[in-house]
Amino acid sequence: MIGVFDSGLGGLTVVKEIKRLMPPIKILYFGDTARLPYGEKSEEIIKKYTLAACNFLKKRKAKVIILACHSASSVALNYVRSKISLPIIDVIQAGVKAALEKTKTKRIGVIGTRATIRSGTYERVFKNYDKEVEIIARATPLLVPLVEEGWINHYITKEVLKIYLQPFKEEKIDTLLLGCTHYPLLKKLIKEIFQNKVTIVDSSEALAKSIINFSSYKKIKKRKEELIIYLTDIPPEFEKIARNFLGLLPDKIMRVSLRE
Amino acid sequence: MIGVFDSGLGGLTVVKEIKRLMPPIKILYFGDTARLPYGEKSEEIIKKYTLAACNFLKKRKAKVIILACHSASSVALNYVRSKISLPIIDVIQAGVKAALEKTKTKRIGVIGTRATIRSGTYERVFKNYDKEVEIIARATPLLVPLVEEGWINHYITKEVLKIYLQPFKEEKIDTLLLGCTHYPLLKKLIKEIFQNKVTIVDSSEALAKSIINFSSYKKIKKRKEELIIYLTDIPPEFEKIARNFLGLLPDKIMRVSLRE
Repeated sequence: MIGVFDSGLGGLTVVKEIKRLMPPIKILYFGDTARLPYGEKSEEIIKKYTLAACNFLKKRKAKVIILACHSASSVALNYVRSKISLPIIDVIQAGVKAALEKTKTKRIGVIGTRATIRSGTYERVFKNYDKEVEIIARATPLLVPLVEEGWINHYITKEVLKIYLQPFKEEKIDTLLLGCTHYPLLKKLIKEIFQNKVTIVDSSEALAKSIINFSSYKKIKKRKEELIIYLTDIPPEFEKIARNFLGLLPDKIMRVSLRE
Repeated sequence: MIGVFDSGLGGLTVVKEIKRLMPPIKILYFGDTARLPYGEKSEEIIKKYTLAACNFLKKRKAKVIILACHSASSVALNYVRSKISLPIIDVIQAGVKAALEKTKTKRIGVIGTRATIRSGTYERVFKNYDKEVEIIARATPLLVPLVEEGWINHYITKEVLKIYLQPFKEEKIDTLLLGCTHYPLLKKLIKEIFQNKVTIVDSSEALAKSIINFSSYKKIKKRKEELIIYLTDIPPEFEKIARNFLGLLPDKIMRVSLRE
């Protein structure tokens, strides 16, 4: 049983990839929709909330936990690993490895929330693999609200992306890593802005691929495919958003409340 | 002692007005920054969080509570009044009365978060005062993130406002009520778009004025002016944001955590 955690519904893009790439499996998804977004919060609060979410998934018998949330992966991974005795797969490693496979010039851009970029985690992980790589990172906090407004192909979103991506053009990156689960929905616009001259790496896809090779996953007994979604709040637009990210509606959705 | 509650730091615009209009007084401000924004959450969660915030202020001896948050005022006011034995002043009434004083054509526009607009509270409160008034309401969810990105005079913000405000032009409103504590920072741009043909009503200002006339306020013993800010999270950009909303830094800031 795989447990997937995200601050909101964006992690469903990872679930979608897992479902596409893997044999049938039971997936528990936990989205902290009552307290999202994490991207603007302090490290202390992100650690606390991420631990609570992982404990929730562990109690429900998840055997592996996937931190699909980039803000949580950037800030809380070591903390949660030190507290919880389950294998925890974060979204950073997979994206970094995929970006390193694609880059030729070793000039890589990263976009993400304020918390993700401020943490400097992407730079550190990249440098662990390859000291020569140049990382240009930028917080792009308006992209999540734009996706949630449904302005996925909107000219305003394109204008905002032009502003956010201009420094990457000047820095002549050849690869851009999408450091947030919402951003894959903007892949088409981002490609247009770079006129296909930059390779876009989608962490959700990279993460799902990395799970297939993960040893603990191989030990998991395959069962009937099932997707159960636990949310701390069920937003009225839930169905629309779920369909955007997941392409379908889940088997079961439950609202739960966590002790702080 | 006045307690002011908002989901984030936007309610500091109300504090600013109170400080400007009133004799020295002690103000306790509670901002639920760990769980903001409220505007996209369900009614159930907004009620629960608002009650917790009011209980927090009551325990710290607030004698009046001001709900500066429009989403909380729209959704949770009656619920909180039924649970807490303090006078609770909401931000809706004050704004509605101010708008009714200004309008000549009785065609009034309201902008706010999804939760505020979906609740239909503004329409109900307007109709209580005047059955003939026509209310045109629209959710404008990108405005809070744009203000928080600091794009207060940015051309993108102006473009987004043009899209959001176009229906109000077509409906020929003569008054626009700003139904969110963040929006007063966009007053200049909004006026430009309407070419000064529409009166803009700032609820924060209206609310502060209404408190002066509030009977319980008159009974409050005036003391040394003091502003204590309690936040459930202290975002790294706190100082910048506080200065934007408040124009100064508060005397004391404390991080607190609430039981759910």
